[in-house]
Amino acid sequence: MGEFALIAQYFKRPVQRAVLGVGDDCALLAPRPGMQLAISTDMLVQGRHFFADVDPRTLGHKALAVNLSDLAATGAQPLAFSLALALPSVDAPWLQGFSEGMFALADAHGCELVGGDTTQGPLNICITVFGEVPAGQALLRSGAQPGDDIYVSGHLGDARLALEALLGHIYLPPAALAAARQRLESPSPRVALGTALRGIASSALDLSDGLVGDLGHILQASAVGAELQADEVIARMAATAGGPGVALSLPRDLQLQCCLAGGDDYELCFTAAAHQRDAVQQASRAAQTPVHCVGRITAEPGLRVVDAQGQAMAQRWASFDHFSA
Amino acid sequence: MGEFALIAQYFKRPVQRAVLGVGDDCALLAPRPGMQLAISTDMLVQGRHFFADVDPRTLGHKALAVNLSDLAATGAQPLAFSLALALPSVDAPWLQGFSEGMFALADAHGCELVGGDTTQGPLNICITVFGEVPAGQALLRSGAQPGDDIYVSGHLGDARLALEALLGHIYLPPAALAAARQRLESPSPRVALGTALRGIASSALDLSDGLVGDLGHILQASAVGAELQADEVIARMAATAGGPGVALSLPRDLQLQCCLAGGDDYELCFTAAAHQRDAVQQASRAAQTPVHCVGRITAEPGLRVVDAQGQAMAQRWASFDHFSA
Repeated sequence: MGEFALIAQYFKRPVQRAVLGVGDDCALLAPRPGMQLAISTDMLVQGRHFFADVDPRTLGHKALAVNLSDLAATGAQPLAFSLALALPSVDAPWLQGFSEGMFALADAHGCELVGGDTTQGPLNICITVFGEVPAGQALLRSGAQPGDDIYVSGHLGDARLALEALLGHIYLPPAALAAARQRLESPSPRVALGTALRGIASSALDLSDGLVGDLGHILQASAVGAELQADEVIARMAATAGGPGVALSLPRDLQLQCCLAGGDDYELCFTAAAHQRDAVQQASRAAQTPVHCVGRITAEPGLRVVDAQGQAMAQRWASFDHFSA
Repeated sequence: MGEFALIAQYFKRPVQRAVLGVGDDCALLAPRPGMQLAISTDMLVQGRHFFADVDPRTLGHKALAVNLSDLAATGAQPLAFSLALALPSVDAPWLQGFSEGMFALADAHGCELVGGDTTQGPLNICITVFGEVPAGQALLRSGAQPGDDIYVSGHLGDARLALEALLGHIYLPPAALAAARQRLESPSPRVALGTALRGIASSALDLSDGLVGDLGHILQASAVGAELQADEVIARMAATAGGPGVALSLPRDLQLQCCLAGGDDYELCFTAAAHQRDAVQQASRAAQTPVHCVGRITAEPGLRVVDAQGQAMAQRWASFDHFSA
């Protein structure tokens, strides 16, 4: 199968809202008046972001999900995406599964594939996603104010727990592993929550490298500090809380590692002023996405992780970095 | 050097026109009223699109140039781009050269880097480029009409000639190789020509896989055929014509192969009605880019390559396909 037959079979679908989709030199989008276009790109590499034996359907889901998560963090409504794909060879069942997983999530968010590129090479998936947000209403990293509450959505740490088990570092019972693995491989981008938080959250980002490291980006961009309550964060771990997974009794150190520096959570972390507490809970209900307060923004710079007694914890939490040793 | 220090050192620059650039979850663009957004993505893989020992400066240029060439083919004015980069390791001189080459071309076209992603992996460069075009004025592949002239810009075939020499298939004198290699490694996206052809060209695309194959996309999208004059095309080969390179006497078969199925030309191929001939030449002068008529669109389907006597040539010209054997 040649390049153009491959595109036609697996990736070319009529567009609904875009002016022009797959098949010309460029795709064409017509943004609505008063809307800004939000753009994000993520590149996924085998062995780095996913295992070689991952189900292609879940990989198709995840490749788009991590991009939609960036739109969610900006409060943008998904519109369209482009897909660039380097493939070692044309593997029909793989392409079938990958495209099905990707399009199922795309359709759920009304986000259409408008263009891309395919080439031969080591497996590499690069998606660029486009969303729209009313001018001036995008959620940025730079708006956190001292006194603001710090929230996280959903559950943290389960993706990292699955990774530790899959790497053979820890043992999880099969049912717990399956539940945690679901969180690692099929994250749910919090798009409805992101758009519901427009005008309410003072800052936001999505959690991809771990809470402590990612929250650090908000602190840096907003020139503030924060106090993070470790036990409130741990309580958000589904595997511990018996949430979507199975309640487990895990060593506290492992819980802390997974929740504070886990990575691959794809939940939102956001801040909001104290007078917005009701509005935050209303947005949470409207989006059918739980949110929990896990700390507070401080004028004093730096991030303090404190225990239930308010004592600072000594340990440092390294977030994921692609180029650190 | 970590991921964020790498981005800050080599890729983070203040944006001029975008609402928000590198450093948040999304970039934000504010399209002007009445404008549509043109989007294109190209992925470049080592060993496939470039040699391992290519000068990183020329690679940075080419990675952006092939994307700008897609905007040119749509008649869009470049605005911004995102860059996703998988790197085997952090190589400071390589990153310095790559970013310099990329930004030099970006600055020449007023196109700013607004976001991206970096990860560790086999070298892979994926750029997504954004341009604007007045609604309804984009140049598409689907507008060619029987009787239209077929034009190509600049010179064809020299990039393929360089590739054949670099692969050791043919010998070129050093000066000729240097000139041809310049065309292979540093293509000039025909942005000024593309925008000048709005309202004049009936269809357009950029030549990346070879004239015969690429023109086939116009024929398919427009449901027409074409007659292509082989000698007119050969006359556009700089190495033969003594253009930017050095005049060479090459076997006719090699000339035909390079010009008709060469690939990597990054020139524009477009069609225009006969009554637009003066307008086409005016656009060519305004854009300071030569254009030449090399054939005609026919109602009869299929592509006939003819010699100087108008006789159909028997040989088939295979264009480049990433997944063909």
